[in-house]
Amino acid sequence: MTAESSRRTPSLLASLARVRPTGDGPMLALTVADQRVGKVTPQAAALLRKAGPVFAFGTAGIEMARGLETPEDRTDAVSSSLRRLAADGDLPAPRYERYPVVTRWGADELMRVDRSYVGLLGALAFGLHVNGYVPTPAGPEMWIGRRADDRLVEPGKLDNLVGGGQPAGLSLAANLVKEAAEEAGIDAATAGAARPAGLICYEAPHPLGLRRDVLFTFDLALAPDFTPVNTDGEVAEFTRHPVADVLDRLRRQPEAFKFNVPAVIVDFCLRHGVLDPDSEPDYAELATTLRQPLT
Amino acid sequence: MTAESSRRTPSLLASLARVRPTGDGPMLALTVADQRVGKVTPQAAALLRKAGPVFAFGTAGIEMARGLETPEDRTDAVSSSLRRLAADGDLPAPRYERYPVVTRWGADELMRVDRSYVGLLGALAFGLHVNGYVPTPAGPEMWIGRRADDRLVEPGKLDNLVGGGQPAGLSLAANLVKEAAEEAGIDAATAGAARPAGLICYEAPHPLGLRRDVLFTFDLALAPDFTPVNTDGEVAEFTRHPVADVLDRLRRQPEAFKFNVPAVIVDFCLRHGVLDPDSEPDYAELATTLRQPLT
Repeated sequence: MTAESSRRTPSLLASLARVRPTGDGPMLALTVADQRVGKVTPQAAALLRKAGPVFAFGTAGIEMARGLETPEDRTDAVSSSLRRLAADGDLPAPRYERYPVVTRWGADELMRVDRSYVGLLGALAFGLHVNGYVPTPAGPEMWIGRRADDRLVEPGKLDNLVGGGQPAGLSLAANLVKEAAEEAGIDAATAGAARPAGLICYEAPHPLGLRRDVLFTFDLALAPDFTPVNTDGEVAEFTRHPVADVLDRLRRQPEAFKFNVPAVIVDFCLRHGVLDPDSEPDYAELATTLRQPLT
Repeated sequence: MTAESSRRTPSLLASLARVRPTGDGPMLALTVADQRVGKVTPQAAALLRKAGPVFAFGTAGIEMARGLETPEDRTDAVSSSLRRLAADGDLPAPRYERYPVVTRWGADELMRVDRSYVGLLGALAFGLHVNGYVPTPAGPEMWIGRRADDRLVEPGKLDNLVGGGQPAGLSLAANLVKEAAEEAGIDAATAGAARPAGLICYEAPHPLGLRRDVLFTFDLALAPDFTPVNTDGEVAEFTRHPVADVLDRLRRQPEAFKFNVPAVIVDFCLRHGVLDPDSEPDYAELATTLRQPLT
């Protein structure tokens, strides 16, 4: 094992620093119909106390008001109380995109909440990221996007070919086709060749509370003459790089990437044999950091 | 999501039941030179109390005697006290294969211990498993071994093409070449084409204490006319199956497989897009079960 020589370059673990829990203060469980759906930070709890009777504070945590019996009732009640907080300036504006609130992937929705407030509740948020790459005899070359300078989240940062949150009421496959067309001008037939490749999941700080993200990863092998074209203004440019160069950039300048993109790329490199457990001293910690317990 | 229809067949999660912690009683930390290397069950602690002054029992846990200053000193002292317990019938016989005792993969060895007693100490144990498969237009076909009926561990059970523990003083790449030759008659050039594909890690019950296994997984794409041939008597036969058939067997008869082999196969299926997050309701739990925290 050449741990000594590898230590001379910055560790890839540093590139995952933004997808680690910070553990700032005791969390409160948020339950809906006796099912635990969220982890609420002290700061987020202080905001939720202003949201009125829709949330009941008890010794065991925060409970959604029991009078709200259907998912639709809960969605409406939470939506109107959080919209009022936003109007008062206590919360950012809604994004008018609804995310499912569930105990686990595949479970029935207990309600929906605007994308802006998922982190406030510390609810699970699902998404998908697509590694677009060209296989070559020397190894994969990855397509990397640079986010437009006017984007709300992490403008100018490096990104995967395609990535997006998973709204309620859509399959991952359908969302992938939609995002691939909007973000990279990829036709449905090409996008349909993307292959599910597992997931990464992590807790991370969120401006309002706590991120608990589950990102389904997909691999999309592309022809050498394929060129992505952004159609929705979210990407400033796409460039293609040998994966070793991408890893080198990750080691030396992790902050050039959107916060969770290093995790998606490191996962790709683990799965494709780009990283070698005999020579990468942090191999095991990289692997476990990419898949944190969904507690 | 077709959760309803998938629920009709047994869940793949059941096939991972043997790589989950059972949580039977409070664990004691085992430290060597102030570094935490093991998790000792109450049952294992009772055995270690008979091992003499090499282990000091305190309120914070179990500490290796401080007089033992070098890894070699510790290895010798532990070896002779555990050999004495084995002679008294309190422990199984040593296997005369030494495993490294470390805080993490890639860290300096604090001592070595016979393979038979890794679970007694609740130390990390490293290994490698190779998914041998033939890519076909209809998807991968996997080579599955059946363990010989006279094997010490899990005789007669279904296994991966190649798998083995990782002894001290050998690289994973070298161990893979050695095990591939012994277990499946694979020449070094063919074995060298195996590609690292990440790892699975889990806690699981162990007859003496606790397993804490880190298994590095490798994928080896094989030609359609390749046939594995066992050379060391450890495998009764090899057969090749479409991966869908292997998954079907995993769902319906998980106990036909060696305890950790379902995890290796499910990991392969997640990475290769054989399982689909839109149709597999336990997809996220499968993924997190395969990579448990190394605590």
